[in-house]
Amino acid sequence: MLSTTAPRIHLGPNRDPALAWGIEQGGGVLVPLEYADAVVWSQGPDTFPDRLPSSVRWVQLPSAGVEPWISAGIVDERRVWTSAAGVYARNVAEHGVALLLAGVRALAEQVRATSWRKAEFDHRVATLHGATVAIVGCGGIGRAMIPLLTAFGAKVLAVTRSGVPVPGASETVDATRTTEIWSRADHFVLAAPATSETAQLVDAAALAGMKSTAWIVNVARGALIDTDALVRALADGSIGGAALDVTDPEPLPEGHPLWTLPNAIVTPHVANPKTGLTAVLADHVSANVERFAAGQPLLATIDIERGY
Amino acid sequence: MLSTTAPRIHLGPNRDPALAWGIEQGGGVLVPLEYADAVVWSQGPDTFPDRLPSSVRWVQLPSAGVEPWISAGIVDERRVWTSAAGVYARNVAEHGVALLLAGVRALAEQVRATSWRKAEFDHRVATLHGATVAIVGCGGIGRAMIPLLTAFGAKVLAVTRSGVPVPGASETVDATRTTEIWSRADHFVLAAPATSETAQLVDAAALAGMKSTAWIVNVARGALIDTDALVRALADGSIGGAALDVTDPEPLPEGHPLWTLPNAIVTPHVANPKTGLTAVLADHVSANVERFAAGQPLLATIDIERGY
Repeated sequence: MLSTTAPRIHLGPNRDPALAWGIEQGGGVLVPLEYADAVVWSQGPDTFPDRLPSSVRWVQLPSAGVEPWISAGIVDERRVWTSAAGVYARNVAEHGVALLLAGVRALAEQVRATSWRKAEFDHRVATLHGATVAIVGCGGIGRAMIPLLTAFGAKVLAVTRSGVPVPGASETVDATRTTEIWSRADHFVLAAPATSETAQLVDAAALAGMKSTAWIVNVARGALIDTDALVRALADGSIGGAALDVTDPEPLPEGHPLWTLPNAIVTPHVANPKTGLTAVLADHVSANVERFAAGQPLLATIDIERGY
Repeated sequence: MLSTTAPRIHLGPNRDPALAWGIEQGGGVLVPLEYADAVVWSQGPDTFPDRLPSSVRWVQLPSAGVEPWISAGIVDERRVWTSAAGVYARNVAEHGVALLLAGVRALAEQVRATSWRKAEFDHRVATLHGATVAIVGCGGIGRAMIPLLTAFGAKVLAVTRSGVPVPGASETVDATRTTEIWSRADHFVLAAPATSETAQLVDAAALAGMKSTAWIVNVARGALIDTDALVRALADGSIGGAALDVTDPEPLPEGHPLWTLPNAIVTPHVANPKTGLTAVLADHVSANVERFAAGQPLLATIDIERGY
């Protein structure tokens, strides 16, 4: 028997299993659109209903950016609309940690190996435990990485514009002190936006300051690294390696040395991939359904004027 | 100025930086052997002092197994001796999670790629978030994986001999129900000892029951998997892939299909590698120094009679 107070949610345009789970976890029940108090939508604006019943008081959209929904005139003032702002940061963070672990544990070379090179890799596989990982740029992605890295016993050195201490980081320094970190941290994750200040932040001087075992992970933008200087450092072995989800130039052309350097990993800008997006969204939906049921403010509400 | 109550620790045979850090973290001060209350040793029995000053009340050895130390007559009844029992499980757990992430996020194939195959990998990179990971065998290694996997938002299905609920697991089933899990979990980590019951636990029938996206990680023993059946499943694409730190046969011979199958990762039994051992040991040393200073029982004390 259904609770009479359970929010009635329409899930469209089709019954995505992860989102259905999220709605039920949040205490909602799935209903056809005409009986709905709220709508959870899993696809783009093209298939969105032309008219919503007036009973619909809330709509959850699937994307972090909602400009196409606003410009299509879909988002209205008659109900609350929420986006997935911040939700996908976790997925990018997972990719960043996967890349860092692959680097630190020498998986790039082990994956390419075709014989049992135990004596060699026994001295090459390292650990995140006790390592200091600098996260350059601690917005949603950088912050989402902190609990992952600390679970492995790493310490986080956060670099932010303001220098205001980031929760969970052992230390936070402001961006004017970035040059200090190259020799202090064991590994680096770039998660800062591409701006004139971050352009080629990792240049020849930065690379020269790093430990010979340091791995650099880039899940931000390719422009943050001087690619030619990086290729030289990788070829010289002056750093441990680089694992890049973004490159400069991007897409990385065939024949580029980064494709074949043994201490380089390139993934083609897939840190927030199409598969599993709704699995990632499901928890956000669940939290919002719970808040909706309780009459509490929803997460990631959209402000039409602001455009997000 | 040093606290007069800080335990005086001798670190030998050389000043390992990670262990020095651990000793200081625990509140100890480093002193020459003749002034020591305790000794932390970073290498094997060969270089251990023939005689210890009678002031030495505790010795921390660097290995989990201490049989060579006992048979060499080094471990005596005149002081407390501690080992690194359980300490390295965390390192194997890190390797297991690194392998699982590499599998789930399609890094094996991306590392080998030499062109920007974004459209393909955008649909192949998945996430641990919301996935159910079965850990077969929940001793020290399996238990150390649980906080790592749950940090990524995965749910853990533990399989143990007793079926007694494992802390942190969403569900624990006893080993007689192992066949149930093949179709229920999204991914599998093998962390059980090699026994007659676990021999070829992952056989053709188990593989046939798994989801087509399932990854299998083996950080236990090669004998737990029917290698020929696994190779067929990988070649057919009937499972997602396999990431193996141990193989059967081991070492894996050159020319074996596991070296070149695109959905296979082999690391040559390096989950607990020689590099970074002392970094992993440092926290244990730190905890024991703190306990020593407070007069509390130490962790991983050695019982000469028992032999560990």
